[in-house]
Amino acid sequence: MSGILYGVGLGPGDPELMTLRAHRLIAAAKVVAYPALAGGASFARSIAADVIAKGATEIVMDVPMTVERAPAQAAYDLGAAQISEALERGDDVVCLCEGDPFFYGSFMYLFARLSGRFETQIVPGVTSITTCAAAARMPLAARNERLTVLPGPLPEAELRARIEGAESVAIMKVGRHLAKIRGVIEGLGLMGRAVYVERASLPEEVVCPLAEAPENAPYFSMILLTKGADPWL
Amino acid sequence: MSGILYGVGLGPGDPELMTLRAHRLIAAAKVVAYPALAGGASFARSIAADVIAKGATEIVMDVPMTVERAPAQAAYDLGAAQISEALERGDDVVCLCEGDPFFYGSFMYLFARLSGRFETQIVPGVTSITTCAAAARMPLAARNERLTVLPGPLPEAELRARIEGAESVAIMKVGRHLAKIRGVIEGLGLMGRAVYVERASLPEEVVCPLAEAPENAPYFSMILLTKGADPWL
Repeated sequence: MSGILYGVGLGPGDPELMTLRAHRLIAAAKVVAYPALAGGASFARSIAADVIAKGATEIVMDVPMTVERAPAQAAYDLGAAQISEALERGDDVVCLCEGDPFFYGSFMYLFARLSGRFETQIVPGVTSITTCAAAARMPLAARNERLTVLPGPLPEAELRARIEGAESVAIMKVGRHLAKIRGVIEGLGLMGRAVYVERASLPEEVVCPLAEAPENAPYFSMILLTKGADPWL
Repeated sequence: MSGILYGVGLGPGDPELMTLRAHRLIAAAKVVAYPALAGGASFARSIAADVIAKGATEIVMDVPMTVERAPAQAAYDLGAAQISEALERGDDVVCLCEGDPFFYGSFMYLFARLSGRFETQIVPGVTSITTCAAAARMPLAARNERLTVLPGPLPEAELRARIEGAESVAIMKVGRHLAKIRGVIEGLGLMGRAVYVERASLPEEVVCPLAEAPENAPYFSMILLTKGADPWL
């Protein structure tokens, strides 16, 4: 009998923001799999480091960060083949996913390759957007407000149009797009309502008004913006 | 010295989707507080029931479900006064919040009343939207896709306009607005792409194509809709 594939959300980075189920599955896993920046560290593994059992087999997918999709997809092909082998010999495989597996997560590439052939279970995790809202002490959405989640790499004109039509906004993957996004928000006269959050929940977390954000934002940074009346009243 | 106020996300309903931090804080709490439907049960308390310490003091806020805001706000006034007393005598108070405290959560009303006077910490939780995506086996957003979160009570014309301009959509608080929402999605020719999820992560969870959704949807139901190309490839 084949093993079960688990896509397990680890939350935003603080290991204590892992769910009880994620903790149980990881601690019991004989095989774990996770992506790493080609040749570099794995953020997912670092979150789960203290929970992974001694002697567990680790399948590392070295994913290159290129604009073209083919090299990354080749890495998932290779990872899926290794995971298949483990599942076929009857071992469960726990895939470690930063945040939530289906919220801008790379687990969907493994899901696409493997869920037709193997039993697959998804364990949701705490996302970076609510973690950033907690860090910024800023309710994300109240009552009948709309929330729009926008990836920072979107073109400037599209970002402007989407922010203009939105109420609450979370802009993910800010990184090297910070200057562009700041320009858009400044142009809309919304700087006073925008908060910058970097590495939410980690010891090196940064929270500040967007106007005071550092020049160089890491990939794991976000801008939150609310336009409604004070949502607390 | 005053106690600390904790706004603790409990996740979507399955107690195992609580974070390790939520579990630790609730288990150690001498005072917990939570909303309940006036005269009825508390969903938040039911999620945490097995973790609350024996002998803990429980502050229950009976919140009436009325369209007018004043009666609910009066309930939070009363709750805030009781929580203040506990904090002032030096006890920490753990507020139990379904899902995430700052994602359509009522904790923001307590935060508005108390965070100026007492140290307040927010613990994010797993939201219903990624839990529904996991239940539906449907990645919510990939790569540079936009995600729009819409409350079901929005007027029909606004829902139509927002869904038309969106890529991935999560419609929350479907409940008695199901027929209206279904009409909008049908009108846009998107029925084939919409999934209905009810009570995600609970034993009575329902997942089905929107076309097959039951007539009477509970408050805790959601519709997910993706319009992009297959996001898995």
